[in-house]
Amino acid sequence: MLQDKNEQRTSISDLGEFGLIKHITKYFKIHNESTEKGVGDDAAVLNFENKQILVTTDLLIEGVHFDLSYVPLKHLGYKAVMVNLSDVYAMNGNATQITVSIAISNRFPLEAMEELYAGIQSACASYQVDLVGGDTTSSTTGLLLSITAIGEANAEDIVYRNGAKVDDLLVVSGDLGASYLGLQVLEREKEVFKVNPNSQPDLENYTYLVERQLKPEARKDIVELLKQLEVKPTSMIDISDGLSSEIIHLCKASEVGCNLYEEKIPLDPQMISACEEFEINSTMVALSGGEDYELLFTISQKDFLTIKGNTHLTVIGHMTDKNAGMNLVTRANQHVPLTAQGWNSFDKE
Amino acid sequence: MLQDKNEQRTSISDLGEFGLIKHITKYFKIHNESTEKGVGDDAAVLNFENKQILVTTDLLIEGVHFDLSYVPLKHLGYKAVMVNLSDVYAMNGNATQITVSIAISNRFPLEAMEELYAGIQSACASYQVDLVGGDTTSSTTGLLLSITAIGEANAEDIVYRNGAKVDDLLVVSGDLGASYLGLQVLEREKEVFKVNPNSQPDLENYTYLVERQLKPEARKDIVELLKQLEVKPTSMIDISDGLSSEIIHLCKASEVGCNLYEEKIPLDPQMISACEEFEINSTMVALSGGEDYELLFTISQKDFLTIKGNTHLTVIGHMTDKNAGMNLVTRANQHVPLTAQGWNSFDKE
Repeated sequence: MLQDKNEQRTSISDLGEFGLIKHITKYFKIHNESTEKGVGDDAAVLNFENKQILVTTDLLIEGVHFDLSYVPLKHLGYKAVMVNLSDVYAMNGNATQITVSIAISNRFPLEAMEELYAGIQSACASYQVDLVGGDTTSSTTGLLLSITAIGEANAEDIVYRNGAKVDDLLVVSGDLGASYLGLQVLEREKEVFKVNPNSQPDLENYTYLVERQLKPEARKDIVELLKQLEVKPTSMIDISDGLSSEIIHLCKASEVGCNLYEEKIPLDPQMISACEEFEINSTMVALSGGEDYELLFTISQKDFLTIKGNTHLTVIGHMTDKNAGMNLVTRANQHVPLTAQGWNSFDKE
Repeated sequence: MLQDKNEQRTSISDLGEFGLIKHITKYFKIHNESTEKGVGDDAAVLNFENKQILVTTDLLIEGVHFDLSYVPLKHLGYKAVMVNLSDVYAMNGNATQITVSIAISNRFPLEAMEELYAGIQSACASYQVDLVGGDTTSSTTGLLLSITAIGEANAEDIVYRNGAKVDDLLVVSGDLGASYLGLQVLEREKEVFKVNPNSQPDLENYTYLVERQLKPEARKDIVELLKQLEVKPTSMIDISDGLSSEIIHLCKASEVGCNLYEEKIPLDPQMISACEEFEINSTMVALSGGEDYELLFTISQKDFLTIKGNTHLTVIGHMTDKNAGMNLVTRANQHVPLTAQGWNSFDKE
């Protein structure tokens, strides 16, 4: 429904793999000194001198992770990069390079690939990341993206999942649950479109939610902010599967418990009113919705005054003894054990 | 036709993604000091100190790159790793880590994943490479593997494609074309099996060819041999698409021409007799067959005596002035321009 009906179509097979790579990489600039040699040899060559290197990878598959009936290809390219950079930032590192592998069926013309790479290029430019390699091949069915992100950090700056201590404060950036609501809005519009293909999508009241779903931003700014404030988190993770699931990861890795306060969870007003409209509980959405790509981290109590009042950060709980368990403390002051209800692609089949 | 009919079937969705990752990675050991932290956080952490880093990635898709009716999953896992390591060795580097992303449909039971990872693990153990990350997800159709390999090298040891000089000798490791013939044999057996499902595959006379296709070895030994001989190639590439296509890559990157001598191209006797049986020209197969994963490189004439007589290496030609073009010099002493007829996945659709 968001597709251009007058699109030009150029066959990818006319270009061949090498022609295609040349064509789509020509607008990519190199931003990092660590990139000695990018695309064009058997492997990229990187030079980080004394820094440590961070490597993370994610696979996005049409029909499992995205639906092209409402995800514009440019946004998809952008988001696919964000998903990966987010993991580098979650280590308190700086993302520097990506490789992008794409499998695409011949139902996509070259112009579709150009759209996709325009999104990837936009993400690389905004986040100062270099495309240094990849693979491009045909697929028997849909579209598939596999991205590997590489980052750097001084050894002493890296934050793992396992450093949280009892009494540390649990902090989250931004707000939660909006991306999930954005998906619900888009799914609903898709159903409306199926019944009446001439209908125009009515997304005016949901712009923030839809943007959070289609074009999330990885929180590089938070890593920079923490550096500026001289606050080093004791543990950190990014929120891809939902707050609840990520808290459980931090607690298990760090061997601590946690109290998460329902009333503290940051929610956007548009998200709250959409929850009312869809008749779903906003806390449940924040806990299990996923795809927020915010950073969740713990800090020592001594750093509380430094981050207090910062509009990007919210203290939502504190770590407890492992034996106290991982609990949601509700508005009614009840302790409810947290459960991981994050998204599992294997459940969808 | 190579499947176990009494296979046990455990559903992957019962385990979930995290359970699956834990299950399949438990037999992987860490071999390299540069692996500070492997699987289990948002990103792997690597430490190469003063070395430069090599990064390469490849995508393998069922129905495009492999056919599970005759490719055992264990071999597929092994080969997928080899394809990537080969690119690191082609830079004259040492492969140290891989990430493995897999998309798999629910027609595969857990036991299939175990087979696949057994092959990956076997490759990691043989080549002293660490699995440090990945992604595992469901696919709507077939099986898909996306592997990124990371390697290290001293800056002064790295060999690019663009360093070949006029009069340098063109050298290839091993022999060529056997993998392509192995594929032809397997395709033929598949057709026989379709007609008579009780037939037993008759592969006795083709063991070398089939092994080259199903379980190729990346030439780490050649990189080590060259180091030992103190020969640094002036340019290097691995042969994945066929000798002709790779020579063209080296010549174009280095801005030189080339004379390749047909009579010098190393062929295995089994490959030659299979070519006779299939009535195809063995030189054509060596030039365009692909998937040999041998190393193709150029050396300065001064190094000729050092490599002469080494059974792993064959001098097959020499580099010429760019204006002389890239030529095959036939047994009849005719000069025929080389053309890239390597495999293009986009042609298959």
